[in-house]
Amino acid sequence: MMPNTKQPPNPTLKNDLLLRAARGEEVERPPVWLMRQAGRILPEYRAVRAAMGGFKDLVETPARASEVTIQPVDLLGVDAAIIFSDILVVPEAMGLPYELVEKVGPRFPEVLRNATDLDRLRKDVDPQVHLNYVLEAIRITKSDLKNRVPLIGFCGAPWTIFCYMVEGKGSKDWALPRRMLWEQPAFAHALLDAITDTSIAYLKAQVDAGVDLVQIFDSWAGVLSAELYEAFMMPHLRKICDALSPLVPVTMFAKGGGHLLPQLAGLSCQTLGLDWQTDPRKARSIVGEEKSLQGNLDPSILYAAPEVIRKKTLAMLSDFGGRRHIANLGHGVYPDVDPEHVKVFVETIKESA
Amino acid sequence: MMPNTKQPPNPTLKNDLLLRAARGEEVERPPVWLMRQAGRILPEYRAVRAAMGGFKDLVETPARASEVTIQPVDLLGVDAAIIFSDILVVPEAMGLPYELVEKVGPRFPEVLRNATDLDRLRKDVDPQVHLNYVLEAIRITKSDLKNRVPLIGFCGAPWTIFCYMVEGKGSKDWALPRRMLWEQPAFAHALLDAITDTSIAYLKAQVDAGVDLVQIFDSWAGVLSAELYEAFMMPHLRKICDALSPLVPVTMFAKGGGHLLPQLAGLSCQTLGLDWQTDPRKARSIVGEEKSLQGNLDPSILYAAPEVIRKKTLAMLSDFGGRRHIANLGHGVYPDVDPEHVKVFVETIKESA
Repeated sequence: MMPNTKQPPNPTLKNDLLLRAARGEEVERPPVWLMRQAGRILPEYRAVRAAMGGFKDLVETPARASEVTIQPVDLLGVDAAIIFSDILVVPEAMGLPYELVEKVGPRFPEVLRNATDLDRLRKDVDPQVHLNYVLEAIRITKSDLKNRVPLIGFCGAPWTIFCYMVEGKGSKDWALPRRMLWEQPAFAHALLDAITDTSIAYLKAQVDAGVDLVQIFDSWAGVLSAELYEAFMMPHLRKICDALSPLVPVTMFAKGGGHLLPQLAGLSCQTLGLDWQTDPRKARSIVGEEKSLQGNLDPSILYAAPEVIRKKTLAMLSDFGGRRHIANLGHGVYPDVDPEHVKVFVETIKESA
Repeated sequence: MMPNTKQPPNPTLKNDLLLRAARGEEVERPPVWLMRQAGRILPEYRAVRAAMGGFKDLVETPARASEVTIQPVDLLGVDAAIIFSDILVVPEAMGLPYELVEKVGPRFPEVLRNATDLDRLRKDVDPQVHLNYVLEAIRITKSDLKNRVPLIGFCGAPWTIFCYMVEGKGSKDWALPRRMLWEQPAFAHALLDAITDTSIAYLKAQVDAGVDLVQIFDSWAGVLSAELYEAFMMPHLRKICDALSPLVPVTMFAKGGGHLLPQLAGLSCQTLGLDWQTDPRKARSIVGEEKSLQGNLDPSILYAAPEVIRKKTLAMLSDFGGRRHIANLGHGVYPDVDPEHVKVFVETIKESA
């Protein structure tokens, strides 16, 4: 495939700190946003959510998804919005519907366990048809944001999506999908291929709909050895990054993946996300100077007193050395954190210029 | 406290590879055992278990606990037995009974959430009284083992036990116990102190009852930043290691704790356990030559074909460089692994002499 040299769609952004930091350009201060910033931490979100049938109804209703996407920009003052959605929309588009069980998590009534099961997957998934509700939410959000800040799109990494499509629910160690890699490598490769192709088409459609940057979430990277990650996951991640990074900046976030940094450093993405267990200085020494790093305050610090949050946030900024850094937490913000504490985090970074 | 210079209780062990490897003495080959070797992988275990009321009944019945402790020595040919028990016996002895819900996991009907709750803890826990069933199982096992191999005793690390006593059940991110460290540090320190004191008394009682080595399991170390681990957990781990390592070799296993190795390397324990995400060569370079390392085959490899298990096991032995190594998995063996595959792992190591 020829690299697409299309320019970023929004040269007129009023605040393009995120995009400049991702590309390694000069910035007056690090941009800041939070994973899961649109969600249960905000009473304003809970009000919208309560008026809907459930989380999934909210995800599938573009006007409401757009509304909660923009809330943290207004209420928390973050430097980016991230489209309100779920990584599980991709397996659903591929033919495996998901449910979200309150206080339990995702459940897939049907799962895939062998090559024959692959026949049940939808052929030629078309994001414009099967994921149009997300694209529509992106279009509405871009219009309503009025170029104030960039909009981030996302998808799950092939491994994380594979885990759900095989296991059908959450797991502590994902022993079953890992078992598949050893026992049925041909099945695993075929399913990972299908997920990868769908994810690329989906992310490209998100870019066409207006997102300014995309992030790949590998929530369960941490359970794989470096060897398995290299053999099964890196080829797919290379394919996704190579397809998207000519279009918009790409961020790869492998949760629990500190041991995978030497491999991830070779991807063509612009930014690597770090969890709070990973030392920013060590990460920089492994990754080199050619990528931006995102993260990585321990999300539990937002439970602390404001003066502690301020101190730890400043220490984190110092650990990242003030260059090629996108400030964030090391994982999603916990739902019971006080929004006032989130504001302390955001404001500390904004005042650091 | 004066260091206790008591000698290892079993100078007459027929196979003392584990103890010699832990102390850094010459060995003809690495010893091998598996975390969770006594348990659901063995049909012989399931037969004993089926005859009991449940897992907890088995733990609390010394003759039966001893029987399943010895099974893997006979059936798998491992170089050590580990007493069949649970880390949650300690919080129960402290006054918080646990239940094990089939297919769900542990549940504590009562939990501790603030300093006042600490009043509900039993004062002056006496392992000889409140944990006598474990000590009795150790005595029976030592007698029935007839000095064939060493017997390993164990407890949970203070952080992991704290997690359960606060949260009351399993958790993906342990956000609530982490919240306590920031919001109620005095409560956290007091509870961690109590757990530490009980654990030391319990491990010493295990040594008196006959165990030849003790292992400390920090199953949830991985969710703590190096900073929090240093501030809250290292003082307690130092205290435990300093109290026990003059008596018997001590192994510290911090699951998900690759980022904590620089700190753990400073403990007075003889051995550090590694999970399968941690590179043995990098670990050795961080830890230095003064400790043994235990681990770390990816448990999912035991799902692979025997020739793959053999190849990966030999590669692991090579990664550890043949010195100060205790062969094991990087975590407990998964319950649905074929025991014949476990034997391939064990035999590959035994033939490596």
